[in-house]
Amino acid sequence: MSGENQTVKNKVTYVKKGSLVTPNGFKVAGVHSGVKRQRNDLGVVYSERPAHAAAVYTLSQIQAAPLKVTKESIQTDEKIQAVIVNSGNANACTGEKGEQDAYTMRAMTAEVFSTDPHHVAVASTGIIGLEMPMNKITTHIDQLMIGNTADHAAQFGESILTTDTFSKSACYQAEIDGKTISMGAAAKGSGMIEPNMGTMLAFLTTDAAIEGPFLQTALKEVVDETFNCITVDGDTSTNDMVLVLANEAAGNDLLTPAHPDWNVFMSLLKTTCEDIAKQIAQDGEGATKLIEVTVNGAPSDEDARKVAKSIVGSSLVKTAVFGTDANWGRIIAAIGYSGVEINPNTIDTAIGPIELLKNSQPTNFTEEEATTYLEEDTIYIDVNLNIGEGVGKAWGCDLTYDYVRINASYRS
Amino acid sequence: MSGENQTVKNKVTYVKKGSLVTPNGFKVAGVHSGVKRQRNDLGVVYSERPAHAAAVYTLSQIQAAPLKVTKESIQTDEKIQAVIVNSGNANACTGEKGEQDAYTMRAMTAEVFSTDPHHVAVASTGIIGLEMPMNKITTHIDQLMIGNTADHAAQFGESILTTDTFSKSACYQAEIDGKTISMGAAAKGSGMIEPNMGTMLAFLTTDAAIEGPFLQTALKEVVDETFNCITVDGDTSTNDMVLVLANEAAGNDLLTPAHPDWNVFMSLLKTTCEDIAKQIAQDGEGATKLIEVTVNGAPSDEDARKVAKSIVGSSLVKTAVFGTDANWGRIIAAIGYSGVEINPNTIDTAIGPIELLKNSQPTNFTEEEATTYLEEDTIYIDVNLNIGEGVGKAWGCDLTYDYVRINASYRS
Repeated sequence: MSGENQTVKNKVTYVKKGSLVTPNGFKVAGVHSGVKRQRNDLGVVYSERPAHAAAVYTLSQIQAAPLKVTKESIQTDEKIQAVIVNSGNANACTGEKGEQDAYTMRAMTAEVFSTDPHHVAVASTGIIGLEMPMNKITTHIDQLMIGNTADHAAQFGESILTTDTFSKSACYQAEIDGKTISMGAAAKGSGMIEPNMGTMLAFLTTDAAIEGPFLQTALKEVVDETFNCITVDGDTSTNDMVLVLANEAAGNDLLTPAHPDWNVFMSLLKTTCEDIAKQIAQDGEGATKLIEVTVNGAPSDEDARKVAKSIVGSSLVKTAVFGTDANWGRIIAAIGYSGVEINPNTIDTAIGPIELLKNSQPTNFTEEEATTYLEEDTIYIDVNLNIGEGVGKAWGCDLTYDYVRINASYRS
Repeated sequence: MSGENQTVKNKVTYVKKGSLVTPNGFKVAGVHSGVKRQRNDLGVVYSERPAHAAAVYTLSQIQAAPLKVTKESIQTDEKIQAVIVNSGNANACTGEKGEQDAYTMRAMTAEVFSTDPHHVAVASTGIIGLEMPMNKITTHIDQLMIGNTADHAAQFGESILTTDTFSKSACYQAEIDGKTISMGAAAKGSGMIEPNMGTMLAFLTTDAAIEGPFLQTALKEVVDETFNCITVDGDTSTNDMVLVLANEAAGNDLLTPAHPDWNVFMSLLKTTCEDIAKQIAQDGEGATKLIEVTVNGAPSDEDARKVAKSIVGSSLVKTAVFGTDANWGRIIAAIGYSGVEINPNTIDTAIGPIELLKNSQPTNFTEEEATTYLEEDTIYIDVNLNIGEGVGKAWGCDLTYDYVRINASYRS
């Protein structure tokens, strides 16, 4: 990281116990409607006024009904005031009835929270291909008692989970125009990838003032470097959505790329997304370890991320990490088939502090020190291709017996 | 398959107990040199005269030393008389010493079998990054007593295996110009991929008369539809090689695309490669089932193969098959992210005789009949995208606890 970027990054501070409701003017709620057996399964994110909105969706060509409805809402006015989200049923591959159901959820939420339907976004996650149990949903939207306490945030956090083992949330702050700007986030994951459970949802709130189109550009750029750099099993869901709401409550001057603190805002957004993305990777199905791969010396940043994703997505690297085996042959193989142009003779590779390869040749590391390192909870794999200036990171998890167990028996 | 193709295919017949030495003029041998603990680990394929040769190699940018040497040999004269192959050590990531070792293997083989070095191909498979135990190899090349019996073929078949649980071989025949043309094959796989064990090698012999460039074109086309359509875990090795030798011993007229029986030869080559490719998929690490995916109605044949590979490569489809779970949500998700343009509303999907989806909507199949079907050894998944004429197949295996066990503990 260059000196300037580091300075910008230092302006972003972590907010302990912060959440979606730390930014001014946001409230949330979560209830149990009965779609899932026990845990909360219906939630709402509410902004005191319509907030500038931007979103990124799954690249799958098969997209669930709520995505269509949310896109339509954002296109209308680029603002969202309420996000209604349910877990337990993805409302995917449900045909016209599914679309009607998503529109019904939008209309009822608009009515309950006194806003326009086009100011409502809809998100769903859960089993694919089952009709939405609308009788449960429609009777509980008006039970969502919004508030901005930590308890409200916890209730909402639970309402979006599927096979996740913990709630994912984060909050950071930065100063812009002398105002404190907060950004909070909540997410669910747990396979990057569980198409049967319509996967990854992330919601971000900020009290920054920034218009939709700039927010959209910023989000797209940051998602490419964070959420698009995590993998659990390479599968992509029908329901993925990252949605950010910016409600102007902090009172800063409208942010544009020309604003002197634009980079501070970008860093705030990226830091928040990266934190959440790592939590999702760490909670991959069956995972026991978080793997962070950093690639330096690539032809471009994009190439560096591509190599990093190839390594962290390799089933053989993932099983080797699970088995605490410093199997650099698998790392170099994953570099070789990444599709990025490399020099096969100039590759350096390390795990944590231990250098494994220098100029593509094994060093004199001992298996014992490598195995000891691989027993840590977070494994850092560092690669330098030594042919350019590109830098990139990717995150994933190990591949374990539990991944097979969870996915071989999920529906039963 | 069109009527004409079916007619051509019917001209190709399976040769029970046939092998690499069924085609006239080929001999093989295999011995134990000590690179592996017990099983044979050094073998040779020999043609009574230099044979027209063609080869396809791994797409990885990190390629093992033997590939460089083999490419050089074929480029010189487009003919090969002897193929020397060892298992247990991949001679990959071994620097200049590795190259020297591969050249030494080539030179010694040329001497022992009285041919030119550029008529010798070299192939290795095994652990990456370890120096070749040349003292074991060099003292055993002259122990290779070639012959054309079934026992010789079995000795060779064993000499190329790594973690494979069985030898892969096949033989087919067809009539061209009134002559019987035979094609034999031997291969090892067992992870499509095990980059640490430099993976898939396949050797084909035929007594057909066909020149190198046409053989190369034919091989490339067929490999795309067979070996490139199998996957075990998505990783690609540094050592993959498919090599075909055609020694003219059958006495047919030289084959070119203008020959009236060109399609018969192509069908013979494809049938042989497909048989071997399926054996490799079936013996994927930890696999309990072979999965064959057929896609119809795609925009093109290439697109159909892409969708088929996306499905058979999905960790979630693979675990579902292992768990005998008719989880069509995972199949449709894999179609959605395959990168091929589809219509999300026109997809039909079946497993074996059981229709799961019609026009992307679930049918009334019972979980019970689906589970019963999924207990078979070979699982057929059929998809019709209903938007074009493209047809393609791909093969893989289920993802099991044993895959994790084998790969989490492989080096220890």
